[in-house]
Amino acid sequence: MDFTPQNPDFATVVAESFARQGLMKALGIELAEVLPGRCVLAAGHRAGLLQQHGYFHGALIGAMLDCAGGYAGYSLMPTGSEVLTTEYKVNFLAAAQGEQLVVRGKVVKSGRTLTVTTAEAFCVQDGAERLCAVMLQSLIRVPAEGEPKP
Amino acid sequence: MDFTPQNPDFATVVAESFARQGLMKALGIELAEVLPGRCVLAAGHRAGLLQQHGYFHGALIGAMLDCAGGYAGYSLMPTGSEVLTTEYKVNFLAAAQGEQLVVRGKVVKSGRTLTVTTAEAFCVQDGAERLCAVMLQSLIRVPAEGEPKP
Amino acid sequence: MDFTPQNPDFATVVAESFARQGLMKALGIELAEVLPGRCVLAAGHRAGLLQQHGYFHGALIGAMLDCAGGYAGYSLMPTGSEVLTTEYKVNFLAAAQGEQLVVRGKVVKSGRTLTVTTAEAFCVQDGAERLCAVMLQSLIRVPAEGEPKP
Amino acid sequence: MDFTPQNPDFATVVAESFARQGLMKALGIELAEVLPGRCVLAAGHRAGLLQQHGYFHGALIGAMLDCAGGYAGYSLMPTGSEVLTTEYKVNFLAAAQGEQLVVRGKVVKSGRTLTVTTAEAFCVQDGAERLCAVMLQSLIRVPAEGEPKP
Repeated sequence: MDFTPQNPDFATVVAESFARQGLMKALGIELAEVLPGRCVLAAGHRAGLLQQHGYFHGALIGAMLDCAGGYAGYSLMPTGSEVLTTEYKVNFLAAAQGEQLVVRGKVVKSGRTLTVTTAEAFCVQDGAERLCAVMLQSLIRVPAEGEPKP
Repeated sequence: MDFTPQNPDFATVVAESFARQGLMKALGIELAEVLPGRCVLAAGHRAGLLQQHGYFHGALIGAMLDCAGGYAGYSLMPTGSEVLTTEYKVNFLAAAQGEQLVVRGKVVKSGRTLTVTTAEAFCVQDGAERLCAVMLQSLIRVPAEGEPKP
Repeated sequence: MDFTPQNPDFATVVAESFARQGLMKALGIELAEVLPGRCVLAAGHRAGLLQQHGYFHGALIGAMLDCAGGYAGYSLMPTGSEVLTTEYKVNFLAAAQGEQLVVRGKVVKSGRTLTVTTAEAFCVQDGAERLCAVMLQSLIRVPAEGEPKP
Repeated sequence: MDFTPQNPDFATVVAESFARQGLMKALGIELAEVLPGRCVLAAGHRAGLLQQHGYFHGALIGAMLDCAGGYAGYSLMPTGSEVLTTEYKVNFLAAAQGEQLVVRGKVVKSGRTLTVTTAEAFCVQDGAERLCAVMLQSLIRVPAEGEPKP
């Protein structure tokens, strides 16, 4: 599915918003790619991202899936909009073992008020990717000042 | 609903597992209370927990909801078990503004293989609690060695 | 939680909308009770509501949970509004065996645009209720004509 | 993704189970196709499948999504297994207007105990398909007699 961004500066807008997220900075999560309706996040293996058995923590994976979906949706919104997650759900498929976690979000339906996205989390081990979690998410657009509020 | 723990040392088992989670330590999340079928986590306001508008990050709230539900379920499992989240979903109700975040998980149904939990996230502002997110979750019990594997 | 309805005729509005739902009529589902922010549906045991083992079909339970939550939310909306489910999720807790299914929906958060609800499904066997499924749902209000559209 | 069925008679097993579902019969839903890890259901426009505005009822769409995912998963299970939905979630994307509803389920991950599936619902209008809902689901396999129970 191809999406046409309403804001030509979408990549800058996403990057600036991401840079202001204290949580993403604290966790060392990297914004790897932003395309219209798509966003990729990545994280390397570090003690502060793990659960009790040394795998990437499911709650971290959920957090990255939420963010990747959120920024995929945000990339299609008009100038001046803000975005909020209203809900998301995650299914875990495999233990997240590996040297890196790569999370890819993409828009399923971009509406004026609500956007629906999905995202997939892959762990990279010895260079091979393995799908370890999937997400489904709803976003709400907060209109820019001057637009009628929903 | 009252639950009878199968492992009399459930509180110690939960605390030791929580202490081994690098992510919870990195985020400074505190295990505030463990009762049979219940678990409370708390976090104070810090830059590393926030999103771009200075509120607690939704992805952090999701992570704490997942953990609180997971440890609520784990508290009822027999000695030697391990617990994995198979899926969870979060609905956000209000902007998470305040000086503290308190997340309370509890078991809805504790089965031999699968457990279902819910959790609620409250932000505390000027001493008053406000419900800001709710969660519904499935856990799977990984049996101790020697038990038949599911 | 107590809710004050914005439309004094909320019970009539809900009943009239329910009566226009061909699916509910075809399935013989009964609107048992409507209170502000609450709705109860019921169905008796009949071949057309069952799955392959003679229990109430999970998909029927999901359908009733969706409707009960939707009408719980609709009961709080201003005159002239319409309501749409944007998403829901169901966890099944026990086989739905019994002579009747009773589903109770209630509002968690009623917003101007979005409403969040939960619902519980109980099977009644020999007069005793057993919780067999839980739901979490988002609704969107479609404003009456003349209101600014979201 | 290609799946190899463990039961060579998977298509017959699925069709026989589907035929025993009173709810599917009552609703006139048709089992259109079964392939390894895939299942397609279809329903024509009829008063008994609609909501109050004459569209296909969201609760019907949810029911078909649940079933299509369930039988997609069941097609990969070994002889003698039974399947239960443990949870599912649906996001609605567009009003389900049209002369037919087609729902396609497919397996994301097939495990020994748990299976994760997705499904998409399309409404067909003047011969063109439009995506109107997406689902994410967990199934549990109930082993055949003689197998160790989970």
